[in-house]
Amino acid sequence: MHAQILVDWSTSVKPGDKVLLRVNPGAYELALAVTAELAKRKASVVYSLEDDDLTRAYLFASEKGDVPEPNHFKALVEASDVIMGLYAPSDLKTLQSTDPAKLMAYKKARRNIFDCLMKKRWCDTIHPCKAFADQANMSFNEYKEFVYGAVLVDWDLQSKHMYVLKHKLGQHNEIRIIGKGTDLHARTDGRQWRVDDAKMNLPGGEVYTSPVEDSVEGKILLDIPFRYQGTIIENVRLKFEKGIVTDYSAEKGEQMLNAILDVDDGSSRIGELAFGMNPGIKRATLNMLFDEKMTGTMHLALGKGLIDCNGTNDSAIHVDILRNLRSTEIRMGEETIYTDGRFM
Amino acid sequence: MHAQILVDWSTSVKPGDKVLLRVNPGAYELALAVTAELAKRKASVVYSLEDDDLTRAYLFASEKGDVPEPNHFKALVEASDVIMGLYAPSDLKTLQSTDPAKLMAYKKARRNIFDCLMKKRWCDTIHPCKAFADQANMSFNEYKEFVYGAVLVDWDLQSKHMYVLKHKLGQHNEIRIIGKGTDLHARTDGRQWRVDDAKMNLPGGEVYTSPVEDSVEGKILLDIPFRYQGTIIENVRLKFEKGIVTDYSAEKGEQMLNAILDVDDGSSRIGELAFGMNPGIKRATLNMLFDEKMTGTMHLALGKGLIDCNGTNDSAIHVDILRNLRSTEIRMGEETIYTDGRFM
Repeated sequence: MHAQILVDWSTSVKPGDKVLLRVNPGAYELALAVTAELAKRKASVVYSLEDDDLTRAYLFASEKGDVPEPNHFKALVEASDVIMGLYAPSDLKTLQSTDPAKLMAYKKARRNIFDCLMKKRWCDTIHPCKAFADQANMSFNEYKEFVYGAVLVDWDLQSKHMYVLKHKLGQHNEIRIIGKGTDLHARTDGRQWRVDDAKMNLPGGEVYTSPVEDSVEGKILLDIPFRYQGTIIENVRLKFEKGIVTDYSAEKGEQMLNAILDVDDGSSRIGELAFGMNPGIKRATLNMLFDEKMTGTMHLALGKGLIDCNGTNDSAIHVDILRNLRSTEIRMGEETIYTDGRFM
Repeated sequence: MHAQILVDWSTSVKPGDKVLLRVNPGAYELALAVTAELAKRKASVVYSLEDDDLTRAYLFASEKGDVPEPNHFKALVEASDVIMGLYAPSDLKTLQSTDPAKLMAYKKARRNIFDCLMKKRWCDTIHPCKAFADQANMSFNEYKEFVYGAVLVDWDLQSKHMYVLKHKLGQHNEIRIIGKGTDLHARTDGRQWRVDDAKMNLPGGEVYTSPVEDSVEGKILLDIPFRYQGTIIENVRLKFEKGIVTDYSAEKGEQMLNAILDVDDGSSRIGELAFGMNPGIKRATLNMLFDEKMTGTMHLALGKGLIDCNGTNDSAIHVDILRNLRSTEIRMGEETIYTDGRFM
């Protein structure tokens, strides 16, 4: 079922499509299942092996600043029609002792590839694995149920729900978020609200935009912990002036937050504003692919804006950070669109 | 050490090289070690995951004849400077129940990619695995010692030895092999003798040519067993007249030998004549990557000739078959170049 949704709903694979599967070793079983579905649809397939262990081995042995662009990988991505990421890391802490400057250089060297990938039909998903189960503080079986609860959704129906919200949001030009530690304002005129109905992420379930970058003013508390390059970052507070982060703090992982903001000019600006809409995701599991879709949350991203929303912010990174919407009010113009834990 | 030899000796990786590692899941540890060496040399690296399981899953689900060309993989190969194959199959029998027609279609769809790959700096090697150890009838530890004994050779020195032989062989225009069940003659004028000193295969260790196809006359006993498409073939006797096999027998697998000779016109003609020169390989393990380099053996191949030797024979196949050189004399013109188990 998971493989079928990926191939049919998420990426609409057609005969002759050239499909790239980006595979963690732990996602091998899912790769086999997807392979069979691709063969039935007469698509061709290539597998790129990807894993934090390999990244770590590379960066550990490299000199600082020495990360050449893998242009041959770009050629592969360019020649592909559909790109699926099948993730199942064996160890989430693999990169935590790697020099953050080297990691950033590594990401920068892959930036053109990422840009190119985003223009394809692409979808990222996970295969249940022990590392994610541990991170979610669940047993492996419990975690499998959680994953498939989020993935095996009636996407056609859920898509319709999300489009209703998207149209509502699109009628306004500004948004204001008010709540504990938070009073943030941004303009959204000229920007598109979009729906992630599992066509790019599986699970999907989010309605998002890139707000007008320079218009972001005020402060926000992002109270749901997340992991970046192996480090937990918690209770992030950001202050924006004319769209730029001018003050920040984090209860945990502040050094990593600082590194994120320092990557480039764009990494201290907003790239995304979004609401989680997956009915199967009711708790955070420290996995952004799931957390950002959690019902009753919003998130913003530092870094690269979303081209499909007319976002213009440029950056090598895009880092999502979440806020629980409990006791938060969201206003668009004069209208309150969210309060008391739900959309009006 | 294995990784260092691959990167420095076999493929001469330079700063900025774009390296593609074609990796079986079982060769992951070697991929990590190679990755570190590539990082030190400021090369970039991409990993393609390859495995018979994936091929089987694809072909099992596909309709007969439906194997589209993976042109995106070709784009990757074309954009690479160096391509290494790191093999460690989990199961050597995975493909044995797959429809041979589907397998042929699969190979055909990859033919252009293979041609493109051959023009790059490339090297194939293995990482010790249980499947190969079983096939060699060795314990895993014994097999690891065997593999590293064959791989961790002083290639600079061994290369010099092989070039001495190559120059010697190149001074003559004909070769005659005399011994038990054997009196074979062939001309080599206009052909090049070449050295495999671990620049394309690791382990390397062979001096080879494509003799003048029509000149091959006489009989030969090839007494070292080998495996072809899952079948063991043993004690092959071939009789050549004007370069064509006119009579043959095998103590085991004669039916498969017959099938080989029947593939096309070229498969009953000679494509290669070669001497094994790896000092670390002293026994056969049913793995041609190693067996063909065994000290004290020669082999001929039925089928496709070697372009780099000026070979002209055309065929869809190239099947190496080995003879132990114990009590064999090899003459070139009037000169005896091999007798009493060693080159003069």
